[in-house]
Amino acid sequence: MSKRILVDCHTHIYTKRLVSLLRSRTVNPRIHTNSTDGSEKLAILPQEVSGGRTVGAQYWDVGNKVSFMNRHSIDVSIVSLANPWLDFLDASQAVLSAEECNADLEQYCHEASQLFSSSETSSEVEAKRRIKAFGIMPLAEGVHPKQVVQSLETIAQSPSLCGAILGSRGLGKGLDDPALEPVWQKAAELRLVLFLHPHYGVGADASQPSGLWGSQDNGHVLPLALGFPFETAAATTRLILAGVLDRHPDLRLLVAHSGGALPVLSSRLASCVAHDPHVCNRLLHDPRYYLGKLYYDAVAYGPEELEAVANIIGRSERYKSGTSTNAPVVNQLEKGVDRIMFGTDHPFFPPTKQDGTVITDDQTETWRSVTENLDAIDHVPSWTRQAKSSVFGENAIKLFDL
Amino acid sequence: MSKRILVDCHTHIYTKRLVSLLRSRTVNPRIHTNSTDGSEKLAILPQEVSGGRTVGAQYWDVGNKVSFMNRHSIDVSIVSLANPWLDFLDASQAVLSAEECNADLEQYCHEASQLFSSSETSSEVEAKRRIKAFGIMPLAEGVHPKQVVQSLETIAQSPSLCGAILGSRGLGKGLDDPALEPVWQKAAELRLVLFLHPHYGVGADASQPSGLWGSQDNGHVLPLALGFPFETAAATTRLILAGVLDRHPDLRLLVAHSGGALPVLSSRLASCVAHDPHVCNRLLHDPRYYLGKLYYDAVAYGPEELEAVANIIGRSERYKSGTSTNAPVVNQLEKGVDRIMFGTDHPFFPPTKQDGTVITDDQTETWRSVTENLDAIDHVPSWTRQAKSSVFGENAIKLFDL
Repeated sequence: MSKRILVDCHTHIYTKRLVSLLRSRTVNPRIHTNSTDGSEKLAILPQEVSGGRTVGAQYWDVGNKVSFMNRHSIDVSIVSLANPWLDFLDASQAVLSAEECNADLEQYCHEASQLFSSSETSSEVEAKRRIKAFGIMPLAEGVHPKQVVQSLETIAQSPSLCGAILGSRGLGKGLDDPALEPVWQKAAELRLVLFLHPHYGVGADASQPSGLWGSQDNGHVLPLALGFPFETAAATTRLILAGVLDRHPDLRLLVAHSGGALPVLSSRLASCVAHDPHVCNRLLHDPRYYLGKLYYDAVAYGPEELEAVANIIGRSERYKSGTSTNAPVVNQLEKGVDRIMFGTDHPFFPPTKQDGTVITDDQTETWRSVTENLDAIDHVPSWTRQAKSSVFGENAIKLFDL
Repeated sequence: MSKRILVDCHTHIYTKRLVSLLRSRTVNPRIHTNSTDGSEKLAILPQEVSGGRTVGAQYWDVGNKVSFMNRHSIDVSIVSLANPWLDFLDASQAVLSAEECNADLEQYCHEASQLFSSSETSSEVEAKRRIKAFGIMPLAEGVHPKQVVQSLETIAQSPSLCGAILGSRGLGKGLDDPALEPVWQKAAELRLVLFLHPHYGVGADASQPSGLWGSQDNGHVLPLALGFPFETAAATTRLILAGVLDRHPDLRLLVAHSGGALPVLSSRLASCVAHDPHVCNRLLHDPRYYLGKLYYDAVAYGPEELEAVANIIGRSERYKSGTSTNAPVVNQLEKGVDRIMFGTDHPFFPPTKQDGTVITDDQTETWRSVTENLDAIDHVPSWTRQAKSSVFGENAIKLFDL
């Protein structure tokens, strides 16, 4: 394989101050010590399987991240805070914590670049450019939108921060809340990438007697495999239906897990919109058009999934207002591929033993979750070598001005 | 275009006895008369937008269905009851109502075939073979699995019934309920097709302050475009994780709306299963293998969506236990396409006026929801003419022994 630049746009950390905060709490979200084996568990939501997931230094230690990157030939990582972010704090705490996090993220990037300088790696990217971060906005109930806008200005002035992580809850009312209008405007103006990522999942659905996930013990599989991408699809759709992308066509929104469930449901969405008097005349374009305005990570684990997402993004101009919906799209492949970028979701999906238990604080194994996402890109039948290089790193270099 | 056989595997009705029952009720699900304009509204779930959807003769009149079929050159329809089915009844009522429905469905098919005989149409299929039906099982809380098995035996003996509609709730605990084991066994033994269709949707999620769909008025769009396929994906996944397809590899399960959100999330599902000690050693194969054991309607409204679903189904043997996951699959296209079949979702998605309001009891318009699904099949770039003919009708003819 020829030399390629590999950029990981989806890789998480917790700052040490956030870890301390989570350790100090007695209700979820919190980090608590398992009385059986002394391991630390991170419990995010009120109803957690097995008391949460085992966590260790790979969630916060900068050396661990650098080791992971070098081991997997990742040239550049754009780290982001992992959920639960700041939703659970009251307004003033959230504003303070966002400031701290953004300072800590800047410091994290500085420390990482020093480790790269002293480590022997084959990366062709110079040490100080190998790590960037998404900052965080104080998105919590009661925070004034002006304070969110101010945090974006802080982020824009921080040399290592190139965007902000974004949950689905906004200021408590979701991403179709009109109060967020100045936030979208400022993010677009500052060319910051907002990384839309799920947190709550879907599933504690009271309308079904046994809930959406039922009473059988399937571990975290259903909320993680389905609930997460359902949440992302719903949040993105609400943002589209609220006209955010009509008013802010230059907004740079990176959607986690290859857009979640939305791409493959987008023609169904268009049909439902066309048949509903509440919505049918609201937007400037067919809903499918807006999928071509978004960016997507390639965290989908399979080549057919990536191919599908690229084809669906790439067709979007066919659904621009006034265009025939059966018209062929010129360079559909390139238009799709140019908005997709490699990610790992590290340090989630860690290596496991034969029985499925996590190998904690691993610093030697090759992670299956990484090789699966690399293999998926490498094996998309219709993608050229150039298309694959774009997804491995070139698209992220352009989007984030790396 | 050469002559093709067009089979609609996804087309709904209410029997007149069910309509009477729904009209007699004072709580949802029910049919009530709108006091403003005198129209009848069907309200299915406790929380309904605008008091429900406007219904008319197209939901129960056999002549209306025949007119719809002739107008759209549909040669064969396999009608199924529309939700809410019988979930809301107590056990003895559900058993009685299932018997009545199955008798009424048989009668419906008989009446339709007489109308075909007397109408001048261009269909090459003889009148009595132009309509079939899915029966219904008494799936409600408190019903004994033996009574469900008996209903399958009744269905198998009814000349016009070739399967049964199947919601996600089962006997109250979902489709991963071990009590359903004899039902799967009997359905497989009798070669009856079970048509898995959503009803509840997803979205009344208490874990988010403003719910998954938020407080903006988006009509039915979010629960219908997203909530329905989310429910289908969750139900199908639970069935797979429960090992139903390991124990009953010959079960014929047709999944509504092209598998809902599941196909594009199936590699993520596989990754979550592989990383979870609760599930990782439970199934005989990688979860993606089982997607190749299912059947799918082509109700996805877009060519890229159909292409994606076919590619994902077609790859499934790559994920059979013991196979290299990067191995190419011989005839991947055909293996995918052979399990997908045309559907309309009639009488839902009816023609609308410019402002989006429904044109009720239409018997002259060409339905956009039909032409979109036909066009989607016609415009899949990689599908041959033979592949398209399979999806238009040949696959259904084989599956249902028409």
